[in-house]
Amino acid sequence: QSLSLLFHRTNFLSSSLQLRFTYCTSFSPFFLLWELVFISSVVMTGTGGQAQNGSVDVLDLLQGWGSGVGTYDDFNTIDWVREKSKDRDRHREISRKRRQSITALLLSVSDAFSGWLLMLLIGLMSGALAGGIDIAAHWLTDLKEGVCLNGFWFNHEHCCWNSKETTFQERHRCPQWKSWAELTVGVTEGASAYVVNYLMYVIWALLFSFLAVFLVRAFAPYACGSGIPEIKTILSGFIIRGYLGKWTLVIKTITLVLAVASGLSLGKEGPLVHVACCCGNIFCHLFTKYRKNEAKRREVLSAASAVGVSVAFGAPIGGVLFSLEEVSYYFPLKTLWRSFFAALVAAFTLRSINPFGNSRLVLFYVEFHTPWHLLELFPFVLLGIFGGLWGALFIRANIAWCRRRKATRLGRYPVLEVAVVSLATAVLAFPNDYTRMSGSELISELFNDCSLLDSSKLCDYGPLAKGGEPAGNLSEGTVGQAERPAGPGVYTAVWQLAMALLFKMAITVVTFGMKVPSGLFIPSMAVGAVAGRLLGIGMEQLAYYHHDWDMFHGWCSPGAHCITPGLYAMLGAAACLGGVTRMTVSLVVIMFELTGGLEYIVPLMAAVMTSKWVADALGREGIYEAHIRLNGYPFLEPKEEFVHKTLATDVMRPRRSDPPLSVVTQDGMTVEELEGLISDTSYSGFPVVVSPESHRLVGFVLRRDLVISIDNARRCQEGIVGVSRVIFTEHTPVEAQGAPPPLNLRAILDLSPLAITDHTPMEITVDIFRKLGLRQCLVTQNGRLLGIITKKDILKHMAQMANRDPDSILFN
Amino acid sequence: QSLSLLFHRTNFLSSSLQLRFTYCTSFSPFFLLWELVFISSVVMTGTGGQAQNGSVDVLDLLQGWGSGVGTYDDFNTIDWVREKSKDRDRHREISRKRRQSITALLLSVSDAFSGWLLMLLIGLMSGALAGGIDIAAHWLTDLKEGVCLNGFWFNHEHCCWNSKETTFQERHRCPQWKSWAELTVGVTEGASAYVVNYLMYVIWALLFSFLAVFLVRAFAPYACGSGIPEIKTILSGFIIRGYLGKWTLVIKTITLVLAVASGLSLGKEGPLVHVACCCGNIFCHLFTKYRKNEAKRREVLSAASAVGVSVAFGAPIGGVLFSLEEVSYYFPLKTLWRSFFAALVAAFTLRSINPFGNSRLVLFYVEFHTPWHLLELFPFVLLGIFGGLWGALFIRANIAWCRRRKATRLGRYPVLEVAVVSLATAVLAFPNDYTRMSGSELISELFNDCSLLDSSKLCDYGPLAKGGEPAGNLSEGTVGQAERPAGPGVYTAVWQLAMALLFKMAITVVTFGMKVPSGLFIPSMAVGAVAGRLLGIGMEQLAYYHHDWDMFHGWCSPGAHCITPGLYAMLGAAACLGGVTRMTVSLVVIMFELTGGLEYIVPLMAAVMTSKWVADALGREGIYEAHIRLNGYPFLEPKEEFVHKTLATDVMRPRRSDPPLSVVTQDGMTVEELEGLISDTSYSGFPVVVSPESHRLVGFVLRRDLVISIDNARRCQEGIVGVSRVIFTEHTPVEAQGAPPPLNLRAILDLSPLAITDHTPMEITVDIFRKLGLRQCLVTQNGRLLGIITKKDILKHMAQMANRDPDSILFN
Repeated sequence: QSLSLLFHRTNFLSSSLQLRFTYCTSFSPFFLLWELVFISSVVMTGTGGQAQNGSVDVLDLLQGWGSGVGTYDDFNTIDWVREKSKDRDRHREISRKRRQSITALLLSVSDAFSGWLLMLLIGLMSGALAGGIDIAAHWLTDLKEGVCLNGFWFNHEHCCWNSKETTFQERHRCPQWKSWAELTVGVTEGASAYVVNYLMYVIWALLFSFLAVFLVRAFAPYACGSGIPEIKTILSGFIIRGYLGKWTLVIKTITLVLAVASGLSLGKEGPLVHVACCCGNIFCHLFTKYRKNEAKRREVLSAASAVGVSVAFGAPIGGVLFSLEEVSYYFPLKTLWRSFFAALVAAFTLRSINPFGNSRLVLFYVEFHTPWHLLELFPFVLLGIFGGLWGALFIRANIAWCRRRKATRLGRYPVLEVAVVSLATAVLAFPNDYTRMSGSELISELFNDCSLLDSSKLCDYGPLAKGGEPAGNLSEGTVGQAERPAGPGVYTAVWQLAMALLFKMAITVVTFGMKVPSGLFIPSMAVGAVAGRLLGIGMEQLAYYHHDWDMFHGWCSPGAHCITPGLYAMLGAAACLGGVTRMTVSLVVIMFELTGGLEYIVPLMAAVMTSKWVADALGREGIYEAHIRLNGYPFLEPKEEFVHKTLATDVMRPRRSDPPLSVVTQDGMTVEELEGLISDTSYSGFPVVVSPESHRLVGFVLRRDLVISIDNARRCQEGIVGVSRVIFTEHTPVEAQGAPPPLNLRAILDLSPLAITDHTPMEITVDIFRKLGLRQCLVTQNGRLLGIITKKDILKHMAQMANRDPDSILFN
Repeated sequence: QSLSLLFHRTNFLSSSLQLRFTYCTSFSPFFLLWELVFISSVVMTGTGGQAQNGSVDVLDLLQGWGSGVGTYDDFNTIDWVREKSKDRDRHREISRKRRQSITALLLSVSDAFSGWLLMLLIGLMSGALAGGIDIAAHWLTDLKEGVCLNGFWFNHEHCCWNSKETTFQERHRCPQWKSWAELTVGVTEGASAYVVNYLMYVIWALLFSFLAVFLVRAFAPYACGSGIPEIKTILSGFIIRGYLGKWTLVIKTITLVLAVASGLSLGKEGPLVHVACCCGNIFCHLFTKYRKNEAKRREVLSAASAVGVSVAFGAPIGGVLFSLEEVSYYFPLKTLWRSFFAALVAAFTLRSINPFGNSRLVLFYVEFHTPWHLLELFPFVLLGIFGGLWGALFIRANIAWCRRRKATRLGRYPVLEVAVVSLATAVLAFPNDYTRMSGSELISELFNDCSLLDSSKLCDYGPLAKGGEPAGNLSEGTVGQAERPAGPGVYTAVWQLAMALLFKMAITVVTFGMKVPSGLFIPSMAVGAVAGRLLGIGMEQLAYYHHDWDMFHGWCSPGAHCITPGLYAMLGAAACLGGVTRMTVSLVVIMFELTGGLEYIVPLMAAVMTSKWVADALGREGIYEAHIRLNGYPFLEPKEEFVHKTLATDVMRPRRSDPPLSVVTQDGMTVEELEGLISDTSYSGFPVVVSPESHRLVGFVLRRDLVISIDNARRCQEGIVGVSRVIFTEHTPVEAQGAPPPLNLRAILDLSPLAITDHTPMEITVDIFRKLGLRQCLVTQNGRLLGIITKKDILKHMAQMANRDPDSILFN
């Protein structure tokens, strides 16, 4: 149904001109500063544009008088082949001129380096934005608890940073920081203080979430959600105007802070990718090379999505692999190298901002020191199974919920929905320490390996916290390193964590998909981290009380420190994230960059692999693919192979019962006939044949180009009337005396349409569409044109086949 | 000239059968052990093969009676489309049977997991081989100097390991280790000892290198060189039988040890990739899925090349990126994930072997602790420029030398050549400490940051070594950390390093390309490391003596430790390696994994980027591409874009002056006519058309398939004689009374040949060839078949265009 957007039509000429106009004028105020700084580059690319206009290329000539040929409507698919050809033409032109003058040589050099400059800009801007978002979200999150008297703009940690009245142990309690209860009713403990704090927490949460959803609704509807499904679709060649625009950027940045601060079960990682892509798209407008070419721009966006993950996790290599594995469609090696550069620049910008004050890029950076034992692979695989199960179930539940939202009245009140969910989250989250804290804090706490100085509940182990005698067979020297019995704090923590697990699992399902910016990484990781920590504590206690069991024999002797619950938490987080997103290499590399040790890659791989297998067995799609399908975007999944044994003839139009294919003959039609064909049909293009009888293919002409050209000719060219013949041949034939002059449109004819035979297996056809980025392909039989296959037909066919035989692609 | 190999013909039926026979029989003795261990998997894949034979697929049916249809000759290019279709057929068959019985279900599961098992095997085997090579090469290298009395199989370090008679300072001198002079003339010092040691060093070096070249010549000519150019070609779809066979594996492993130990200026990294690919290819024979499918096998080989780099540098992620960036042609995401797994397994296998006794995977692992300053980027970029210059010059010099070797009599005496070069190397290398040691030792020494306990000449700094008063303004507390004046040891070292630099630069040019296994990574890195260390020492002394200069103001105050010469060495090594190979991301990631700190990625990127730009400006090709072109392999570079504005009609055959295209008509030719066509022409296939007049395309038939089918039909089918009609239509027409029955060969007809129009730009055509992995493509004009373009035509055309306009692809 929504697929019809693909061939959606508007009064395109006017709308496209209008859009271009909007872009050009509204661009300057926002980027005045940048323009001043990079005036030189703008000037330089400006002249580059002139150089291009001087080209003899047909498309450019047409752009001179038509301005519209070669561009796309909103919700349309780009033609990769044409875009790449256009870029090569531009490039050839620059190369040709290079020899002629020094200026042209400099221009060609600046053209070559403009990609790097663009990457630098994206890296700097995204890093700065990510840092700002981190700081602002941290501050607003703390504002729910209290306020700093030294200045309301300090967060809790900053407020107490320089306070001399606190000890290291009590570093979170300083007189400058006042909870709301302290400020209003004047007490810090007791029931009334609790009630006031509770109330303020809920009110702030509601306020933040309301503001977020209001801003999104009012100014930038595209700013909601994680953005990754749409970015995947855009990168595959779809056009969604405004999705990566400046308003989306501004609103998404602000509302992301609000949404994270409101305490909803969502993360900032996915939206950061969207923010980085907005930066990329906006900076593309500084350079003609990227502004005018949809394919080149998508290369930049691929790099930008790497930048997003790089700043979200402080993992530049992981970010590049994420872009390669998960998001990108066309990812040449040149882009790989540039993505890496941009990701590094962004990571270093973020580090110099230092949002967490610990010179780390993420809150939950962790270093483990205890090696793991081969036998531990068993619980690790268990975590993988849990992650896979949770991932598959989450996707099903979330998709069902989103479908319900679309189908029922629920979808009509997005603000109310957010308010209700936010209220429920805040009310349920406050009583439990582990749900009250933000997602990243929770993950950080769970990943943490207990050191001797740690004062958290999770580290409240028997002999250490009580200061009593070492229990059991512990030798004196290893106290603190050795396995210890759990103290009361740990028991409380376990209980609270179990409740938090159930709560997070339920609330995340309804949260993802609401009309606020919402990432999935942090909630998924939180669920996994809680489960992993619980299993880790369980294993630890098992090892302590039953160290004589065979399975612990030899590696977990009394007095040894053998189980690291933090490692279990990390593996659980990776497994759950893997189950939800089906990332593999990039996930392992991101986690590797978070922990910084080759040691833990093997457990990580075990958990992530198991998780992926289990999740794939229960449902083939990751959450992003599921949302793409839910929204009906025309996305041709590059990872899955088409395995059915159908032929092109089964898929092509017209079907047997349909009217014959609408074709244009190369010299037999008049302007009126063509206009009639255009208004009668809604196809996005027409094959041009030698004659209706022979059906021998000459080329392909796009509807949009045809309409614009006829329109232009009628306005600008002398003597073009309804009965003028339209000619697509090389030489315009001499018309009979008195007849109007013919209109030769060979310039807009695509002389190299790809044609396949009717016996071509669909698996090969799908491969061709995917790899070459086609919009349509003609089908011939024994040299005669028989029909046409569009991307839409392929997607429909794939959906049909998948429904007919759902598990046929299971073991691939 | 060598391109003609592509369409090389042999008496293929017999030879292919013979080859298959050889493979089957000679396989068992070598892998008896493996077969015993993996008997279950062999059994399982054996039945998998039966399942496949039971398929109704036409190719399989033909294989039943013909055994040859669907395979390739040596020095031929595979058809990726067909191979992938074959695999999908196989896969579909397994999926279909899965529902029928439990056994089939298990088979399908085992089929799905066989890829992972294969990866595990490759990882284990390659890791073990790499460990063995490291240990053996270390031992043989030390054997040139002396022998251990405790057992001749101990290397120097092992020999002195447990010796109690030595101190830490003198840990390399223990009574158990005797130099050759000590053993023979009984003295350790003095002229006679020196002469004896010199002589023994030269003799051993000659012996090792002679053995290496002899073994290569006698048993496995393919074992010479680095192997990476050939592997790139193979991965792009070329067939070189035996290049990855078991003899190559055995001989390459042995001779690699000998070549490294002989002290020639070569490394083991490239050959390790070849060794890993041999392992991959050999293990493929255990699984029908991979044995029978050339495309699937190439996926495994891509992973294997990642494994090779993983064990060579102890960098699993870098290895995977190397495979992706440098070697692979078709690299689906599934392969990425599996490569990563295999690379990890290999790295862990190598670590458990622990060849260097320091639980590191490489000799030159290093950790730096001093941060770098922004101003240092200037010398870093200088190193990049040096690396780029050296890379470009090295490639030119080496290619010129290799061409000379091919053209002149030099090429006829490879053994003599190796002996002479080896003699020259040994004679010139011995007097200089830095050339006498092996390449990895040299790099390790140069990367090393001087600690207080270091006794090497390079760390002989003034105040420290002399124990005297701290010079200049140094404050007492920071001695050892602070910048120090160079002592006499450093001056000697600088002098020797300068000599070593010149020597290495010259000797590497003649060494690479000789008939022994020879990698380029280590020599290139050594050159760069020497240059970098020299620059680093220079900078350090500059900072010491001129710390009042503006450029050192603020960050390099007296008493501070600000310049790390080891870091300069590392950057120089990276820059030179980048200049020679043109690796980018993978190189940075490998170096990152060697140093283990995000800090140094920015200098690394600066050096590597500069190096690549400088080198690209002087010559577009990396050393591997240059060697591919030198050897005339049919390799379609996936990285470079074709930028010329030619059309398919300019490239296709037949040209205007040529005789018309040889075609087969679908129902008009007899067996005799076809046989005549086959013997008259040497094309590898023929288009099938409806009739010679209409020239409307029906399909494409491969020469090899045609010959085999006619041969089979003449032998096995009743009544097939010379005048029998050959039919390619769906329904066999009824023949006139008395005429022999027709032969229907529709089964071998490819009904989905790709056809493009004559106006298709070559840039798009090249893209189609590259992305779809085609062997040939038909050209039509207005629906009529006009000609054919093969991969060979495209390569010729590209070479022509590149010659005509050599720098047109410079700024891409």
